[in-house]
Amino acid sequence: MKAVRFNGVGKPATVEDVPRPEPGPGQVLLKIGGAGVCHSDLHVMEEELGFRAGFTLGHENAGWIAALGEGVGGFKEGDAVAVYGPWGCGHCHACQVSMENYCENAERLGGAGGGLGFDGGMAEYMLVPAARLLVPLGSLDPRQAAPLSDAALTPYHAIKRALPRLAAGATAVVLGVGGLGHMAVQLLRALAPVRIVAGDVDAAKLRQARELGADATVDTRDVEAAAAAIRDIVGPRGAALVLDCVGIQPTFDLGARVLGRDSRWTIVGLGGGHHDFRFGSTPYGCEVCTPYWGGRAELMEVIAMARDGRIRAHITEYPLERAPEVYAELKAGKVVGRAVLVP
Amino acid sequence: MKAVRFNGVGKPATVEDVPRPEPGPGQVLLKIGGAGVCHSDLHVMEEELGFRAGFTLGHENAGWIAALGEGVGGFKEGDAVAVYGPWGCGHCHACQVSMENYCENAERLGGAGGGLGFDGGMAEYMLVPAARLLVPLGSLDPRQAAPLSDAALTPYHAIKRALPRLAAGATAVVLGVGGLGHMAVQLLRALAPVRIVAGDVDAAKLRQARELGADATVDTRDVEAAAAAIRDIVGPRGAALVLDCVGIQPTFDLGARVLGRDSRWTIVGLGGGHHDFRFGSTPYGCEVCTPYWGGRAELMEVIAMARDGRIRAHITEYPLERAPEVYAELKAGKVVGRAVLVP
Amino acid sequence: MKAVRFNGVGKPATVEDVPRPEPGPGQVLLKIGGAGVCHSDLHVMEEELGFRAGFTLGHENAGWIAALGEGVGGFKEGDAVAVYGPWGCGHCHACQVSMENYCENAERLGGAGGGLGFDGGMAEYMLVPAARLLVPLGSLDPRQAAPLSDAALTPYHAIKRALPRLAAGATAVVLGVGGLGHMAVQLLRALAPVRIVAGDVDAAKLRQARELGADATVDTRDVEAAAAAIRDIVGPRGAALVLDCVGIQPTFDLGARVLGRDSRWTIVGLGGGHHDFRFGSTPYGCEVCTPYWGGRAELMEVIAMARDGRIRAHITEYPLERAPEVYAELKAGKVVGRAVLVP
Amino acid sequence: MKAVRFNGVGKPATVEDVPRPEPGPGQVLLKIGGAGVCHSDLHVMEEELGFRAGFTLGHENAGWIAALGEGVGGFKEGDAVAVYGPWGCGHCHACQVSMENYCENAERLGGAGGGLGFDGGMAEYMLVPAARLLVPLGSLDPRQAAPLSDAALTPYHAIKRALPRLAAGATAVVLGVGGLGHMAVQLLRALAPVRIVAGDVDAAKLRQARELGADATVDTRDVEAAAAAIRDIVGPRGAALVLDCVGIQPTFDLGARVLGRDSRWTIVGLGGGHHDFRFGSTPYGCEVCTPYWGGRAELMEVIAMARDGRIRAHITEYPLERAPEVYAELKAGKVVGRAVLVP
Repeated sequence: MKAVRFNGVGKPATVEDVPRPEPGPGQVLLKIGGAGVCHSDLHVMEEELGFRAGFTLGHENAGWIAALGEGVGGFKEGDAVAVYGPWGCGHCHACQVSMENYCENAERLGGAGGGLGFDGGMAEYMLVPAARLLVPLGSLDPRQAAPLSDAALTPYHAIKRALPRLAAGATAVVLGVGGLGHMAVQLLRALAPVRIVAGDVDAAKLRQARELGADATVDTRDVEAAAAAIRDIVGPRGAALVLDCVGIQPTFDLGARVLGRDSRWTIVGLGGGHHDFRFGSTPYGCEVCTPYWGGRAELMEVIAMARDGRIRAHITEYPLERAPEVYAELKAGKVVGRAVLVP
Repeated sequence: MKAVRFNGVGKPATVEDVPRPEPGPGQVLLKIGGAGVCHSDLHVMEEELGFRAGFTLGHENAGWIAALGEGVGGFKEGDAVAVYGPWGCGHCHACQVSMENYCENAERLGGAGGGLGFDGGMAEYMLVPAARLLVPLGSLDPRQAAPLSDAALTPYHAIKRALPRLAAGATAVVLGVGGLGHMAVQLLRALAPVRIVAGDVDAAKLRQARELGADATVDTRDVEAAAAAIRDIVGPRGAALVLDCVGIQPTFDLGARVLGRDSRWTIVGLGGGHHDFRFGSTPYGCEVCTPYWGGRAELMEVIAMARDGRIRAHITEYPLERAPEVYAELKAGKVVGRAVLVP
Repeated sequence: MKAVRFNGVGKPATVEDVPRPEPGPGQVLLKIGGAGVCHSDLHVMEEELGFRAGFTLGHENAGWIAALGEGVGGFKEGDAVAVYGPWGCGHCHACQVSMENYCENAERLGGAGGGLGFDGGMAEYMLVPAARLLVPLGSLDPRQAAPLSDAALTPYHAIKRALPRLAAGATAVVLGVGGLGHMAVQLLRALAPVRIVAGDVDAAKLRQARELGADATVDTRDVEAAAAAIRDIVGPRGAALVLDCVGIQPTFDLGARVLGRDSRWTIVGLGGGHHDFRFGSTPYGCEVCTPYWGGRAELMEVIAMARDGRIRAHITEYPLERAPEVYAELKAGKVVGRAVLVP
Repeated sequence: MKAVRFNGVGKPATVEDVPRPEPGPGQVLLKIGGAGVCHSDLHVMEEELGFRAGFTLGHENAGWIAALGEGVGGFKEGDAVAVYGPWGCGHCHACQVSMENYCENAERLGGAGGGLGFDGGMAEYMLVPAARLLVPLGSLDPRQAAPLSDAALTPYHAIKRALPRLAAGATAVVLGVGGLGHMAVQLLRALAPVRIVAGDVDAAKLRQARELGADATVDTRDVEAAAAAIRDIVGPRGAALVLDCVGIQPTFDLGARVLGRDSRWTIVGLGGGHHDFRFGSTPYGCEVCTPYWGGRAELMEVIAMARDGRIRAHITEYPLERAPEVYAELKAGKVVGRAVLVP
């Protein structure tokens, strides 16, 4: 079968013929319906993150069950499912409550999930090591579901942890209205009666944010002006949540200037920014954090929201074979919405 | 000044002339902008609840500050405010965290609040005993705000306590789309991505529920049929929340049949129904409760939602003098939306 | 191998020879180290709860892994483990977050767990259908661990859900200092700085409660006197939690008289009592509930507490063959502490 | 009356004669029973924090009510009370739920509380601007209570926010067993069944930590060795909470090396350390925060714990007149336990 392979840091991904896997006991074989193309794959291909060459890319996957290994119950061939991405040990306390993204044994598993050390979903078929990692889609199209497993799950997890602070009267600021940010705005609108302020450097994305539920938008090209504009909106209370989907130095600097007391500053963008944290560098009671992906049960909730029409990923489909080209376009910032590879 | 007075159980309320109060130290005098007419006043006038004759009715109040007693800071004359209804001791642990509705010393205060033992807001002016009981309205009209202080605050408090169970994929059932119920549907829509099922015996109210955000509606005139219809919607998981805004025997019986495991059964309607609670009479992990009103900070959140246009009470205005007549219409079920008296 | 078998309602359990099971893919064979003898087995044997004759009893189990089925990772032969008791579907939202006790598909699984419809642990070996149901014991003795899987897990789950109400200044009342109650007192002491009041009809058990951390004890033979004594201790605030480990009518009646506003009334004893729930029958904001057992992750926490010496089950060991006799003694109230069968 | 006065940055505190204040409407006059001497006063006297010269020091205060201003209810002369320290506006959302430490209007109040911009408790009498700031002591001695209002409240608030992560099996690391740290160990022991690891550079303090409930202690003079020792204890799971009561660079560096995924890193010590926060600098899901003091209701809980004997501040008493000398000893690290001034 065709598969998009990681060939080592600094080398381009290539489409190659690899054997179709067979599910062993407890495993599940998936026929891929769609595999999202995520910006973090560029980091995998360009930075030394510890991944060894020789696996199939694609960590946002959905499709149909093609074969069940021995001992697998609760699913049947043909079921449409999404694949939960961060694969943990399955046994530790975090994994037991479905938060494999915080698996205590992550360092010793040889990979972070399918497409991240293990064979992923940019292929005709994909082997999923355990049925607990599958979420039924019901009537939802796997092409729609695939990007939700990361681009929606990541901000969803981040927002859920901020919910106690997101009562009416509070303000949430989303920085960056791209793959994650355009989901974050929808998720916030569905989850909390807060005022939502979206910031981006691109007027079209700010328009999109307003259409998706933002109450106000701010051009962030000038950090000082953007900070002043946001402070005007939030008043002395400050922002209850800054969800930074970019993570570059300007968005770090902007976030630091608009946060209120007893707030949450969540960075999910991998842009390389930093903050010199010390007593007084953030308002009292502000929590600074870099959460990672989300939990299995949270993915069930994200899928339920999409199935009920409360959120929707904006996707563009490409055939599997065009993966190398899509990565190039993604790097050049030319991809509109989320690119999804369809075998 | 004119005031609507409680004359004892079994006697009709009357409009009378009473002296305009003067605020002492720490107190605030309010010029009333609107006073909501609540069904529970009928209980006060018809049942022996322990209230002694001789106070002004009206426990859903909003207006403008007319005079500040000595030592009151943070407000100025002319400020538009809502009055928080359940007045506690102000010192116990519950009152300290703003939940005066659960004041530990409630039995020893001589009354439950303005309009409930103490002089309320169905008058030209009202004395509020402490500034902590006032919530600024900003641009919100006091006539809109008045009913929110009970008809929205009560379901809001009930829903907030259910929120951990109201993730996407779960279902909330609202029984009764009247004063509280029509707010409950809006609040659920603003607060959680759950499926909302509204039940009522009146087709017009079910239409209103759908317009306000309900995903499905069920005619509850036949309890068996309604239970079957709701179970069809919720599936084996059952309802995560039943919010019973009626509380009569049929709605109790209906609620008991649709709840799921690990759910919440909240009764805020005073309809006189009951449930013979024993091991197995409710699903495992179901919490049965009768919450009461809400907290001061929760009223701030309700007001913020209304100011931001996320919820809206449907009101009909009446002059203060017509209070006795409005009570009669309310009893006869003829009032459309929430009646608000305007001095 | 020897096994204690359920022979149908109204018939005594018998010790019989049954084939030793073999683990299929995904399954685990356990050599039993200890199986707790629980009061609820008497209900299984005496009441029509829907269980069909022909399975091995014992739902509080711990031992050592004897054999791993194909595809099972994370464990090896000889590992000491406890068995999580309430077996769910493994796929629903509740199961995904480890709360199989609230499995949405419980009605369709053909049994509630090992010893409750499926073969349990009163035998030399036991088949566990999935590795997710095992909790590593480390240095903890399986005979100590076995009863914790129910007698400690059930009150632990009940108490965890009450924790937000159990700040210092609040009072928790434990009714019944038997198998569950003597664990409940220890758990409350380890988990919260509340005042603990223990009630029982037996002076020796009240002495034990004080030794285990209760701040006060109350003789509950006279419900009126006990209620007055508890109200003296809790004052106008009332009890924040009543944890009824008996569930007979006198303990129901006692609980109802001492609860405070915004409290929690949790019944885990199966004594057949009831409460006629209606508006006003419980204080405002009181949650009445019958939780069931606990979650997988909660069992991990219970085991950790025992391993760290913070809680300890008081057990008496019996050989497996004496099971029928132990049930008779249990029914007669003659068992001291928790009886554990050791093959 | 005598009072210890702040004379501006760089100048020593002096004992002077000042007029005894009179309580206006809503205010309360306190006869001081004890005033704790806190390390942060040294920061006030030595760093430019924005405080203007001319107020009485002392922000850990307790005593007896000497006079009530007009309109104050719920208290009477002679009542023993602690003073809640961080004085907010009293009206914003944070103040309404008792968290005046996060008052939205903090910047515009002219001071942070008594002894921090306004006249504090190092005097014979102290004026408290509102009754909501008082917590009844019952039988607790004001000299014992005074330091609890900061040295216990600050770690209590920090720990409460970490509680969801502090289930059995998790580890909390307390760095620095001084005024705050020796309370933190006791509080953790009373609040959670976690393993507690205490770190300090002083063997006597580590001994004290073990006596107060720490399960293990670590000499932190060598950061590398201390990190290795703690990692041995916590294993791959890492620490769930690092509570840094020192905040110097070595404790920052140590904390960063022992935290686990999905953890909390709380800095309450003002030692001037910092951390260069960026994606990957802390484990995934770790929350870094500098909380501030605590809430009014939390102080009620702290006082309840002390009254019930679950926590105890180790104090040394000094007459008010010796304040300048005590500050000098505090700076020299010669004060044993918490110094309390007694007028």
